[in-house]
Amino acid sequence: MLSASSLYAAIDLGSNSFHMLVVREVAGNIQTVARIKRKVRLAAGLDPENHLSDEAMARGWQCLKLFSEQLQDIPPEQIRVVATATLRLAANADAFLQTAGDILGCPINVITGEEEARLIYQGVAHTTGGSDRRLVVDIGGGSTELVTGNGSQATSLFSLPMGCVTWLERYFADRHLGKANFEQAEQAARAMIQPIADTLRTHGWQVCVGASGTVQALQEIMVAQGMDERITLSKLQQLKQRAIQCGKLEELEIEGLTLERALVFPSGLSILIAIFQELNIESMLLAGGALREGLVYGMLHLPIDRDIRSRTLQNIQRRFTIDAEQAERVRQLAESFSRQVSQQWKLDERCRELLESATLIHEIGLSVDFKQAPQHAAYLVRHLDLPGFTPAQKKLLATLLQNQGNSIDLALLSQQNAVPPRMAERLCRLLRLAIIFASRRRDDTLPAVRLQADDDTLHLTLPAGWLEAHPLRAELLEQESHWQSYVHWPLTIS
Amino acid sequence: MLSASSLYAAIDLGSNSFHMLVVREVAGNIQTVARIKRKVRLAAGLDPENHLSDEAMARGWQCLKLFSEQLQDIPPEQIRVVATATLRLAANADAFLQTAGDILGCPINVITGEEEARLIYQGVAHTTGGSDRRLVVDIGGGSTELVTGNGSQATSLFSLPMGCVTWLERYFADRHLGKANFEQAEQAARAMIQPIADTLRTHGWQVCVGASGTVQALQEIMVAQGMDERITLSKLQQLKQRAIQCGKLEELEIEGLTLERALVFPSGLSILIAIFQELNIESMLLAGGALREGLVYGMLHLPIDRDIRSRTLQNIQRRFTIDAEQAERVRQLAESFSRQVSQQWKLDERCRELLESATLIHEIGLSVDFKQAPQHAAYLVRHLDLPGFTPAQKKLLATLLQNQGNSIDLALLSQQNAVPPRMAERLCRLLRLAIIFASRRRDDTLPAVRLQADDDTLHLTLPAGWLEAHPLRAELLEQESHWQSYVHWPLTIS
Repeated sequence: MLSASSLYAAIDLGSNSFHMLVVREVAGNIQTVARIKRKVRLAAGLDPENHLSDEAMARGWQCLKLFSEQLQDIPPEQIRVVATATLRLAANADAFLQTAGDILGCPINVITGEEEARLIYQGVAHTTGGSDRRLVVDIGGGSTELVTGNGSQATSLFSLPMGCVTWLERYFADRHLGKANFEQAEQAARAMIQPIADTLRTHGWQVCVGASGTVQALQEIMVAQGMDERITLSKLQQLKQRAIQCGKLEELEIEGLTLERALVFPSGLSILIAIFQELNIESMLLAGGALREGLVYGMLHLPIDRDIRSRTLQNIQRRFTIDAEQAERVRQLAESFSRQVSQQWKLDERCRELLESATLIHEIGLSVDFKQAPQHAAYLVRHLDLPGFTPAQKKLLATLLQNQGNSIDLALLSQQNAVPPRMAERLCRLLRLAIIFASRRRDDTLPAVRLQADDDTLHLTLPAGWLEAHPLRAELLEQESHWQSYVHWPLTIS
Repeated sequence: MLSASSLYAAIDLGSNSFHMLVVREVAGNIQTVARIKRKVRLAAGLDPENHLSDEAMARGWQCLKLFSEQLQDIPPEQIRVVATATLRLAANADAFLQTAGDILGCPINVITGEEEARLIYQGVAHTTGGSDRRLVVDIGGGSTELVTGNGSQATSLFSLPMGCVTWLERYFADRHLGKANFEQAEQAARAMIQPIADTLRTHGWQVCVGASGTVQALQEIMVAQGMDERITLSKLQQLKQRAIQCGKLEELEIEGLTLERALVFPSGLSILIAIFQELNIESMLLAGGALREGLVYGMLHLPIDRDIRSRTLQNIQRRFTIDAEQAERVRQLAESFSRQVSQQWKLDERCRELLESATLIHEIGLSVDFKQAPQHAAYLVRHLDLPGFTPAQKKLLATLLQNQGNSIDLALLSQQNAVPPRMAERLCRLLRLAIIFASRRRDDTLPAVRLQADDDTLHLTLPAGWLEAHPLRAELLEQESHWQSYVHWPLTIS
């Protein structure tokens, strides 16, 4: 088998950038092997009569020549090329597409806004965890998609002709970041959203997920500033104030905002604020994928699981040959422990789920080396793509795995922002104990452990004579009570 | 299948420490899941009549109780327990062994010195690269094994009743690090080696490999002090002088020497010096494994490959689902490039082999994520157990992989100590070019590249019209010539 035959490519001719994503299927898992992005800024080349300038077309063709070299090696049925807003709109799109198709050597599909919205929803559904009932928002260069859905099914699809490039040209053309610019931009956006707000609200959602560069930029800003990863209206308003203080687009400076994203950040922000206001959105999380992922998953015919996170964890177990039975043993113990103390310790469903996720992959570090296995586990989890988990959740998992044994790094537990530090500490304690009790890798040697929480003190009660009969685990438990006491986590064993 | 049934345990009741190693077989690869070591110091409990003290026996039994808890879960036919020098010697060994066997619940095999030497040789042959004709040296607590061999076959086997614990008690009993102590210790060791030196030398060797804590400690010292990893007599003599300067065992301080290894370091050093002198050893490298690895590989019936490194690389390709065809493509290109410039650039066989190894696993980082793949590759290679590669070679591979694309980190290339920095730079340049030309993942798109080296300037000649017809790679090559010029590596393309 030629290795090229297992490659798939998704190309998206967007209004701001052209993207090519090349992936390989490895045991039911998608592995990215190439990603090329060029800022073609096609939308900027549209004149008021929607005529695409020669320069913009030339920029696009130039980029496609690069893509085409890699494309030739991939079977045609494993390539999807779509074009969006600007090429839907351009009066002379045909002139561009003719040459573009010749360069690429494969058909370019100018998709409707509805089709774009559907693909984005598929991309999100394949890569994003949380509740099944979701609102998906994608702010592109020339259009913004809004979709509600339930599981793998989109229930309403909208594509609005506003985007961060068109709004930049229209409301920030003077490169001024004034209160008035923002107000005009927001008002125009709200006017676009109003007609569809009722339908979206009727379908409803439990979680709101954002794709696109604007939301990505917000995520990066919040991580850099050590904030919680949920995007809220008040955070957006604060960032707007900060932008206004900067005064001019070329002087825009926000901690965590990269130069690359800065140009279209204010315009994207104004659209997002309008969406939050019109739809009364409480908070939004970053999606794991969007249009290109929708194209790729569509070609691969992978089903959308009801539970993306558990597919992800199983996938990781398989890829890194984790002892799944041992993981399950630790999971069950941790689950029993968290059940016993959940009331006292106020462990909610979300916390318990994250603890469970940690147990299922806690041995991943062994795939690198036994020495420093917890450190390797943390490294892998920090950097792996884990569809269904948000960046903050990944960080928490990495932190728990790093602290699965030996000395405890309290600073790490307080640096993550998925759950309050106190909660992270509690999850950490339960994980460590579950690992110790399961250390014999057998089901029939697990004792009936009684766990009681009394504020921060944990009382562990074992059957009479158990410690004497199990000197290795007795030693591990004794050490553990020292480790926990060093960081002022009282642990009594009787 | 109960996961415990795929576990194997090797226990070694040594004169200084008791060790337990528990491994899992994962797709023909050995993964360590537990490693327990207790410094029992059995040899220190022998009186002049070779009578083992009650205290020493109690320390041993205490440790075995810990081991036994984990052992119960492993099928008896997948356990090997061996005892070495001190229990060969102790007049009352039976008293110890009776109770020890009861505690462990499985037979303890007191192996002869020759059997120990044979197992050590097997452990080395399974885990250590380089020439097939080797001398293996293992300085234990109570005995020292010296073995010559060819490939998987030991050709002569010796076990001498001297070790770092017995020599400590005998020649450094006053805890004084004087010139006289060293001289006596060395002379006594030389007297032991003399009678077998001729036989060993007759069998001969091309490489000398050392196992045991003493050699491990030397390796750590050399790494900490930024030295080349080859152990030579002059380095040993320098360390001896340094120890003598410290004056007393409790004041021994050498950069890189851990507290844990300090106590038996001078005695081990004196034995090693004697071995170097008696056998005229030029240089020694650290073995990848010894007695316990010999036991484990023996149980698993894995064949000893003629080429351990290539088995290791294939194993890594499989475990991390590396695109083997792409790796082979890059390997062939790199090989052709290095052939074209090897004379000008003085690339020896060893350099070319390491470059080849790098190509075969250069995409390992993709198994973590496309983003920062070179960094992930370097992390994995730095930490993975790579039988057949020495620590310095691993570091070079990691360095090359980290520098496989984008900006070049010259400091990294000069920090490794497997080859001179200038050589590492040259290997790096060839690897980067091979990756660029193979970027289409197809054999039939590789051009006939002519490469000429003119001191540090590299001239790359391509067929007429090739660059125009391949804009993506033309762009990559242009960027590459910028990257290389930033670090003053002239690269011309025509």
